[in-house]
Amino acid sequence: MESSSSVSVSDESSEANGGGCCSSSTTPSMDAVNLSRTFSDVSSFSEEHGGSGSSVDHSGPFEPPMKPRADVLDRRSTDDELELVKERFSKLLLGEDMSGGGKGVCTAVAISNAITNLYATVFGSCHKLEPLPAGKKTMWRREMDCLLSVCDYIVEFYPSSQTLPDGTKVEVMATRPRSDIYINLPALEKLDAMLIEILESFQKAEFWYADAGTRSFGSATSSSTMSSSSFRRSTHRNEDRWWLPVPCVPDGGISGKARKELQQKRDCATQIHKAAVAINTGVLGDMEVPDSFMAILPKSGKASVGDGVYRAMLGAEKFSPEYLLDCLDMSSEHEALAMADRVEAAMYVWRRKAGASHGRSRWGAVKELVADDEEQDKNVMLAGRAESLLLCLKHRFPGLSQTTLDTSKIQFNKDIGQAILESYSRVLESLAFNIVSWIDDVLFADKTVRKQ
Amino acid sequence: MESSSSVSVSDESSEANGGGCCSSSTTPSMDAVNLSRTFSDVSSFSEEHGGSGSSVDHSGPFEPPMKPRADVLDRRSTDDELELVKERFSKLLLGEDMSGGGKGVCTAVAISNAITNLYATVFGSCHKLEPLPAGKKTMWRREMDCLLSVCDYIVEFYPSSQTLPDGTKVEVMATRPRSDIYINLPALEKLDAMLIEILESFQKAEFWYADAGTRSFGSATSSSTMSSSSFRRSTHRNEDRWWLPVPCVPDGGISGKARKELQQKRDCATQIHKAAVAINTGVLGDMEVPDSFMAILPKSGKASVGDGVYRAMLGAEKFSPEYLLDCLDMSSEHEALAMADRVEAAMYVWRRKAGASHGRSRWGAVKELVADDEEQDKNVMLAGRAESLLLCLKHRFPGLSQTTLDTSKIQFNKDIGQAILESYSRVLESLAFNIVSWIDDVLFADKTVRKQ
Repeated sequence: MESSSSVSVSDESSEANGGGCCSSSTTPSMDAVNLSRTFSDVSSFSEEHGGSGSSVDHSGPFEPPMKPRADVLDRRSTDDELELVKERFSKLLLGEDMSGGGKGVCTAVAISNAITNLYATVFGSCHKLEPLPAGKKTMWRREMDCLLSVCDYIVEFYPSSQTLPDGTKVEVMATRPRSDIYINLPALEKLDAMLIEILESFQKAEFWYADAGTRSFGSATSSSTMSSSSFRRSTHRNEDRWWLPVPCVPDGGISGKARKELQQKRDCATQIHKAAVAINTGVLGDMEVPDSFMAILPKSGKASVGDGVYRAMLGAEKFSPEYLLDCLDMSSEHEALAMADRVEAAMYVWRRKAGASHGRSRWGAVKELVADDEEQDKNVMLAGRAESLLLCLKHRFPGLSQTTLDTSKIQFNKDIGQAILESYSRVLESLAFNIVSWIDDVLFADKTVRKQ
Repeated sequence: MESSSSVSVSDESSEANGGGCCSSSTTPSMDAVNLSRTFSDVSSFSEEHGGSGSSVDHSGPFEPPMKPRADVLDRRSTDDELELVKERFSKLLLGEDMSGGGKGVCTAVAISNAITNLYATVFGSCHKLEPLPAGKKTMWRREMDCLLSVCDYIVEFYPSSQTLPDGTKVEVMATRPRSDIYINLPALEKLDAMLIEILESFQKAEFWYADAGTRSFGSATSSSTMSSSSFRRSTHRNEDRWWLPVPCVPDGGISGKARKELQQKRDCATQIHKAAVAINTGVLGDMEVPDSFMAILPKSGKASVGDGVYRAMLGAEKFSPEYLLDCLDMSSEHEALAMADRVEAAMYVWRRKAGASHGRSRWGAVKELVADDEEQDKNVMLAGRAESLLLCLKHRFPGLSQTTLDTSKIQFNKDIGQAILESYSRVLESLAFNIVSWIDDVLFADKTVRKQ
């Protein structure tokens, strides 16, 4: 992953998702929820704005017989814990329609939004390699436990046998946790714990941060030796993100040991990022393609990808997606995402023409059974090439936002298990991505200082 | 309310609803849920069968990392309390589809079923005027608190004004509890507490019960003086309900004071019953008429009510629903319910013909604005007469089961507030009805003994 790529990712997402999160909204639209792969780290994601962290505001002359608004972080006793759990679950049950009319979102979307918003509330204002404040750590652990506990009651049936007292064996249907949850949820919880541990490990570090905005308002803090010395040593890797704190290192750079440890943590976070991406991609792949997505597909795949790309995909005897991407020379994540959307739409157009319906499995069957019909053959080939082009694109831009199809799948998903796995893996992916990026910032500062 | 009427009510409902309750079902059908006004008091409603009281059964060779099945009544510590709340809410979120696929019922129906099933679990095996066992009382209070807590977060907006620091007044939208919940929920909680209190007051009574089945299997208990003496003094009011315990009184009957107190409690329970019926009727009236009900209405109201009733409704200058009901001479609740269904369907046919859409308010408007058109006039008149006939019918049979329309409204209702108010008032209505009936049994036994 290139450093320059990470920078532009954050820029893209902060531009696209500046709207902030609000779980108390009564509109079932997804507009307010950040679905990009990498969260913007604009500081507007503070707990004051996070819907998950705030109670219903009963201001006004009418005094209702309801729970008073309380600071979530102060709720420590078990009774309060119970109230908190009831509040969280009640709001999920209301599906974000606080009028109780049941016209909000379905449970799957409500839980997905709740996890997204909780992440924004807890991690939205974190921009440094340092331990998470105790209150936020507790909040994250406690509220995630609450949201994940729903998975404990999701089961699947399987045929089993039971031995009766007289020794007869009978076939019975028994239940067990659903396999996708059984496999992925413990893995995600492990990744979660590892990321928190990486942040914890920066309790004592050889680098530190100058406050955001120091450069712009240097004169205001010039009397402070610390600030001005920090300023002198600060790097310029994030010059276009002036609101972020600037990592500072000692004059001679950090010690070799610290540098080595930092590199190890970077490798670890990169692996965690890959694992989270893999789970997220898998869950999204399993989700049903919404009818609404199929309904608005263009009539031809050629129109979707454009003449040039279409010719490149159709012409060559041996198709090289890498070469095609090199030729396209996309410089921004924005262009890459637009291309991904077009290629994905074209892929579904060609699959449909080849006779497959929505499902991934059906498509597999079609590929096997396809007739010798030349036109059919062409559609199968084009769909296959579109798929490999899309994979290449996603590989080249690891922090790419969700495509239109992914967003649409999340929005129309009804499966509660998939909603939890998708949103949990998405926010962990984002956190891992940020940690890698923060480590890169420190390594860059170190390199810069040592060069001087 | 006549004693004979109560008896036949229970018979009807036990016949019609013998299926029992099961909240863990994955089918979204309402078949398994008892929606009759008066619950059957067949003993199959024990906690072993009640879905609300049982955990997911993870039997089988595969050992999932999930909570073990535990006796609900033993969960006393706060941590267990927390787990219980999480379990209850998780199951509500899954909407009775334990596969997590979100293909179960909507939240409103899930909560309505949960309250119905909790009532069946706690009160289904109660057939005596005696305090509720401590465990059941705790369970009822705790689980109802959990289910009702959702109401704490249902709000409505209202325009309010706020004074800014500089003294300016600005219009703002504030929130308050939804008015129907604000008015009805505290009332229902009061009725609930009063009913439990009535049962509590029978800690020491001058009457007692012979075990169910004593009469049928008298020989088996003939060695016990208590049983045989009870048997001698038992009444025969419930001869056709042999499974119910038989109230027994001392040889000379109960004391005048006890008789007076019993009568007072009967009056109190009757008032509670009326209040619960009023709330239930009000909430059902406010619920939207499902499209599916309108879609299957017969084409003509005449065909629905039958020629005879139609002529009676159309002919008379001054229509007397009481006289018509007398002529119809319905002897069973079953016939009465069938007639109520036919009259209700006809009412909606005539309303539709008169130009009203589903809503109650729209119908009000139509009645006001109706043209001089004679045909229109006739439909408005017929709809009005059907409404008064239906009211009369319900008044004459106070324990009548829900009509097809009521059941359909509950089944398709999406409003969570209405779901809670409807189901809570329905189960309290049932409990009040049973208490009145049990008091009548004792008074009947007393009267019989004193006559001898």
